[in-house]
Amino acid sequence: MPATDRVKEILSWYGSDNPGVKTNLYRLMMTGRLAGTGKFVILPVDQGFEHGPARSFAPNAEGYDPDYHFKLAIDAGCNAYAAPLGALEASVDKFAGQVPLILKLNNSDTLSKMDSPCSAVTASVKDAVRLGCAAIGYTIYPGSGARNRMYEDLRELILEGKSFGLPTVVWAYPRGAGLSKDGETAIDVVAYAAMISAQLGAHVIKIKPPKDHIEQPEAKKVFEKYGIATKTLADRVRHCVQSAFNGKRIVIFSGGEAKGDAEVMAEVKELAAGGSFGSIMGRNAFQRPRADAIKLLQNVMDTFKTAS
Amino acid sequence: MPATDRVKEILSWYGSDNPGVKTNLYRLMMTGRLAGTGKFVILPVDQGFEHGPARSFAPNAEGYDPDYHFKLAIDAGCNAYAAPLGALEASVDKFAGQVPLILKLNNSDTLSKMDSPCSAVTASVKDAVRLGCAAIGYTIYPGSGARNRMYEDLRELILEGKSFGLPTVVWAYPRGAGLSKDGETAIDVVAYAAMISAQLGAHVIKIKPPKDHIEQPEAKKVFEKYGIATKTLADRVRHCVQSAFNGKRIVIFSGGEAKGDAEVMAEVKELAAGGSFGSIMGRNAFQRPRADAIKLLQNVMDTFKTAS
Amino acid sequence: MPATDRVKEILSWYGSDNPGVKTNLYRLMMTGRLAGTGKFVILPVDQGFEHGPARSFAPNAEGYDPDYHFKLAIDAGCNAYAAPLGALEASVDKFAGQVPLILKLNNSDTLSKMDSPCSAVTASVKDAVRLGCAAIGYTIYPGSGARNRMYEDLRELILEGKSFGLPTVVWAYPRGAGLSKDGETAIDVVAYAAMISAQLGAHVIKIKPPKDHIEQPEAKKVFEKYGIATKTLADRVRHCVQSAFNGKRIVIFSGGEAKGDAEVMAEVKELAAGGSFGSIMGRNAFQRPRADAIKLLQNVMDTFKTAS
Amino acid sequence: MPATDRVKEILSWYGSDNPGVKTNLYRLMMTGRLAGTGKFVILPVDQGFEHGPARSFAPNAEGYDPDYHFKLAIDAGCNAYAAPLGALEASVDKFAGQVPLILKLNNSDTLSKMDSPCSAVTASVKDAVRLGCAAIGYTIYPGSGARNRMYEDLRELILEGKSFGLPTVVWAYPRGAGLSKDGETAIDVVAYAAMISAQLGAHVIKIKPPKDHIEQPEAKKVFEKYGIATKTLADRVRHCVQSAFNGKRIVIFSGGEAKGDAEVMAEVKELAAGGSFGSIMGRNAFQRPRADAIKLLQNVMDTFKTAS
Amino acid sequence: MPATDRVKEILSWYGSDNPGVKTNLYRLMMTGRLAGTGKFVILPVDQGFEHGPARSFAPNAEGYDPDYHFKLAIDAGCNAYAAPLGALEASVDKFAGQVPLILKLNNSDTLSKMDSPCSAVTASVKDAVRLGCAAIGYTIYPGSGARNRMYEDLRELILEGKSFGLPTVVWAYPRGAGLSKDGETAIDVVAYAAMISAQLGAHVIKIKPPKDHIEQPEAKKVFEKYGIATKTLADRVRHCVQSAFNGKRIVIFSGGEAKGDAEVMAEVKELAAGGSFGSIMGRNAFQRPRADAIKLLQNVMDTFKTAS
Repeated sequence: MPATDRVKEILSWYGSDNPGVKTNLYRLMMTGRLAGTGKFVILPVDQGFEHGPARSFAPNAEGYDPDYHFKLAIDAGCNAYAAPLGALEASVDKFAGQVPLILKLNNSDTLSKMDSPCSAVTASVKDAVRLGCAAIGYTIYPGSGARNRMYEDLRELILEGKSFGLPTVVWAYPRGAGLSKDGETAIDVVAYAAMISAQLGAHVIKIKPPKDHIEQPEAKKVFEKYGIATKTLADRVRHCVQSAFNGKRIVIFSGGEAKGDAEVMAEVKELAAGGSFGSIMGRNAFQRPRADAIKLLQNVMDTFKTAS
Repeated sequence: MPATDRVKEILSWYGSDNPGVKTNLYRLMMTGRLAGTGKFVILPVDQGFEHGPARSFAPNAEGYDPDYHFKLAIDAGCNAYAAPLGALEASVDKFAGQVPLILKLNNSDTLSKMDSPCSAVTASVKDAVRLGCAAIGYTIYPGSGARNRMYEDLRELILEGKSFGLPTVVWAYPRGAGLSKDGETAIDVVAYAAMISAQLGAHVIKIKPPKDHIEQPEAKKVFEKYGIATKTLADRVRHCVQSAFNGKRIVIFSGGEAKGDAEVMAEVKELAAGGSFGSIMGRNAFQRPRADAIKLLQNVMDTFKTAS
Repeated sequence: MPATDRVKEILSWYGSDNPGVKTNLYRLMMTGRLAGTGKFVILPVDQGFEHGPARSFAPNAEGYDPDYHFKLAIDAGCNAYAAPLGALEASVDKFAGQVPLILKLNNSDTLSKMDSPCSAVTASVKDAVRLGCAAIGYTIYPGSGARNRMYEDLRELILEGKSFGLPTVVWAYPRGAGLSKDGETAIDVVAYAAMISAQLGAHVIKIKPPKDHIEQPEAKKVFEKYGIATKTLADRVRHCVQSAFNGKRIVIFSGGEAKGDAEVMAEVKELAAGGSFGSIMGRNAFQRPRADAIKLLQNVMDTFKTAS
Repeated sequence: MPATDRVKEILSWYGSDNPGVKTNLYRLMMTGRLAGTGKFVILPVDQGFEHGPARSFAPNAEGYDPDYHFKLAIDAGCNAYAAPLGALEASVDKFAGQVPLILKLNNSDTLSKMDSPCSAVTASVKDAVRLGCAAIGYTIYPGSGARNRMYEDLRELILEGKSFGLPTVVWAYPRGAGLSKDGETAIDVVAYAAMISAQLGAHVIKIKPPKDHIEQPEAKKVFEKYGIATKTLADRVRHCVQSAFNGKRIVIFSGGEAKGDAEVMAEVKELAAGGSFGSIMGRNAFQRPRADAIKLLQNVMDTFKTAS
Repeated sequence: MPATDRVKEILSWYGSDNPGVKTNLYRLMMTGRLAGTGKFVILPVDQGFEHGPARSFAPNAEGYDPDYHFKLAIDAGCNAYAAPLGALEASVDKFAGQVPLILKLNNSDTLSKMDSPCSAVTASVKDAVRLGCAAIGYTIYPGSGARNRMYEDLRELILEGKSFGLPTVVWAYPRGAGLSKDGETAIDVVAYAAMISAQLGAHVIKIKPPKDHIEQPEAKKVFEKYGIATKTLADRVRHCVQSAFNGKRIVIFSGGEAKGDAEVMAEVKELAAGGSFGSIMGRNAFQRPRADAIKLLQNVMDTFKTAS
């Protein structure tokens, strides 16, 4: 299928990347209901690892089965399905090729307490290759005392990914002793995390919708002096997208905790208005009954489609 | 020997694995009194390392000799015998091929006190290969501050194991500063540990029989809201098996401290009723006189056989 | 273009280096408005990473776009443009060859608090090679408890750089528990940092303009006994240059915070008078409107030209 | 020289080892006054490193010269001479082949205080190979917080040693925060250390003569319940030998501090009666005048010979 | 030039070393005014790194230039010149071959405070090879909590050095939490450091002139019991040389802080009387005017020559 002009434009921002990486970015952008629009709705299912089985799957017990999520992503027309190693390994053989896969290379659980939060690297680039994935995913916690280890692991994984033609999706979640709890979603901090991800070489950046709060005093002065708007979510999304190389990196937003359809759609409209490249929606998808989930996901897709 | 339908079904869950790994899973499932049933009774003898010689072998002094355990596993008709490097090396040459072997790659002793519990990696995948083993075994302590090191070592060992056609058995023992003492066997925590093991790529998961206690407040809410049954051991086993990819990973349970035959059999019946794939029984086997041990092991096997 | 005598003289100080490294030193010295003078004005843009997006680019919002800085460096006639991985990757394909590039291999952000300050290594020598860079850059924090790790990483990067014909620019910023806040820019400390950089094998050394303050009591005695002048900035620059192998290593100075044109020019005159090989000017360049920035940069260049 | 039946029997316990390792075990057992008996008297001289020069060699100043110990071991008819790298390197060229050598791969000194005791790895397997050694030696401190590092280094060294046909002698010295001072030589702890060494793959295990004290409460219960005798040194030696794979690993005992001939001989008689495979005697040998040392060593040898 | 008998005798102590290492030991011993005597006067210039530029070179400002020290070592007739990487790189091309070079592989500065002192490894063996050096130098701090890291790095560097035919000079400076300030130069501690260096495989050992003080109580007892003389510096030097394999390793002494000619010569006479193999003299050489330095160095050489 020939790429649309918008897809070609986006690919042009990755001029230093080899054709293999561009081919997989093409696959992510030319798949599903949003194919060709340059927008993304991705299904991520790492909650089993991150929050435990019951908290993740009891609301919709079909989700205990890894096959379920593959089918959901395919049937809803998502651009990609993202999950940890075990879940992909368990089902990929059955659904090979039907949806682009993103292997989450690192993961954390809530059982241990760590002074400097740092996910464990639980899969390798070679795993992604042998499972036929289209991209790798990696979580950084800017603000953590283990920052260097994460940035440095990521540097090597991005480079190894490129060598196999795999782009990298960075989950940028500010967290750790350097930040207050509110600071984790402050607009200055979230935009900073997007900037760091871009500088580290991320192809796609995933952040949380930022709040109207500024964490760093030096940043506060600048936001005020130069009148950077932060009142609406759309304003804040706009600043984040601008912070990622003036919009020349793909920035998508997570959906967060499960909530009602109306709430989800209201948030998505703001994201779209602010110039987000899309959403990565886990709990709001797989914790709903399958039919509801597909309907909601497609409404989200259509909102982004209209905005493009 | 042609695989039974049940064995073929179980093998079908490991679609991403190479034929070498499947061949060794076949060997584990087509050996001994439970051959073909998809059920497992494994003899593990790492107590010498983990608890010291007298505590392990004084009750039945024949056990000081590594040959003893090989013979016990073979004569009782176990699916496999699992032990640390030294014990396997000492006797394998005499019993080569007579019983599938699982080399425990990491072990801990009780002589040192560590802030973040973490077993030492005391053998390598290449040791398993040169000793003719059918699988490797590795212990993780979810809840420990050394979690990342363990998950990451395991990631590499699983990948190296696969490259030699060896599946991995994960001993998942929650432990460490992130958990209360009771929390180590809480149903939410044990099921979470099973889920983590599955996500890390374990082929076989070994957990302890969980207690009717919920450790994490967020989990408690969910167990109550969705009415997850935890009253009987069978209930709890069922939740653990479901948490391991909806029953598509082999989950077996340890026997724990030595106890009377009746107690052992009562517990095993609950395990079987809850859908456990079997038992891994150490002290309740090798600390009994040989004849009693064989009789008990075979009763346990027959219980699982009936349940299948 | 044939090298000038001054460029040949400077190259003669690098007698242990291979022709590849000398070729890139030649490129740095034979480019832009200062070509052939042996003087340098370099544009560095790592503030997005080091201070966050708004603090860096809100004063002149064109700077959010990585293309902007390439164009600024080219149009102003800088010897080189220095930036982290992501920013170079985003634009290099468009401007390939038009300005020598320095890839900053390590970077820090202000989100986390670390006991022993240490930048993360966020790019590799091989990245510099594939992006066509003329040099690599690396920041050390003499005074930090993580000193050994930084010096040792640098040792390996310099050696790897040489193997690809790339010289190394060392950003030497004293910092950490071994120093008072004032001590970070004390004349004894800054000159010591220049000396350390030279001993570590730096080809170009970048330090901050030192203050008229002496941090170490043992140094104070010596400065007094031997009458080392420290009153004017030119005096202090002279001591720093002498401390870098008696002027036989290229030493350049950073511009620091944004300030008025007059202030910048006054400082630059002192630098030139003291024998500095040039300036590396970031915020005072890219935070001004483009036309003003180019005018200021060229005035700075002309000051160094006159001094040569 | 054809192996005796006893030597063949001992070699049969190492069925997993390659002929190279067996050849070197043969050399250790077929050398010196005890050749063919399966018993060992080894001269170890690492005290220079472990206690300093004067404390080690002032009592018999000839010992400052590394040649002295080679000659002593050869002339007394020891099975082997064990020392750190430097001492072997200094003299081996002169005495090449005349006595089997054991290269102590790790060593500690008393100058620094470490929270978690851990010897430095001061030589490599390849050093042992180039110096013509018959075995490598390694010290573990069960009970130390650095246990994992030691066990893991040992794992790799054993495997590398095997690849060159070199067996491994493990010095097992319980020590560290997990143990009381008395606990370091408690019978339960020393036997446990022997068991750990066997499980780690040691070919020869060297422990201290245990005291009639039990450190761990759980062990105490078991010793009492099953009536494990600990009153005489012979009793305790018997339990240690049993703990090393029921006597199927070579277990030898150290002599400890210098003492009178009568005391040494009394202890050796108990060791022999308990089934020890021999002694490793340093200070009681090299701190005596040469003639006395040879006489004592040979009396010790004869005691073991009689017991075999 | 044929080796003298004394040089042949010294070379005979290195029987385990390959001809490449012996060739470089020959070069060190057959160079300069002391050629053929088996004695050494070496010029070391690492003070710029260790103490800072002004403290090192302000007393004689010619020393800021790395060329100066090459010329000084050549013209005074030293056996070798030792310096860190940068200083050698800056000048070696001009003076290639004219004096044997020792590359100091690790260095420390006084800007940071470290709990466990440990120099940074600032150059590699391969650097020494490409710069045409005759030996490598490495500093250990026995007494530091980072002891293991230093001994283990040294082990690998010695082995790598040998593979290129390079002998190793060990700077043994006791230091760290295990020692009092006085203990750093106590006779028992300095002799112990010499012994450790020898055991680690040093070819040449550099220590400080020890004081008449005994740090360790266990050592004190032995010094008294066996009447080890420590009153004169010559006595103490004798004990140190004996502690280095009974004089079969080359032991040289540093000169310490700058002092008057008479003081220097008095100390050197004691060193020579005690059997020192020579001096390594930095500040007392390069901080004097050139003519004075050459005169003093040659007087020192002549003192050692007479003693041989």
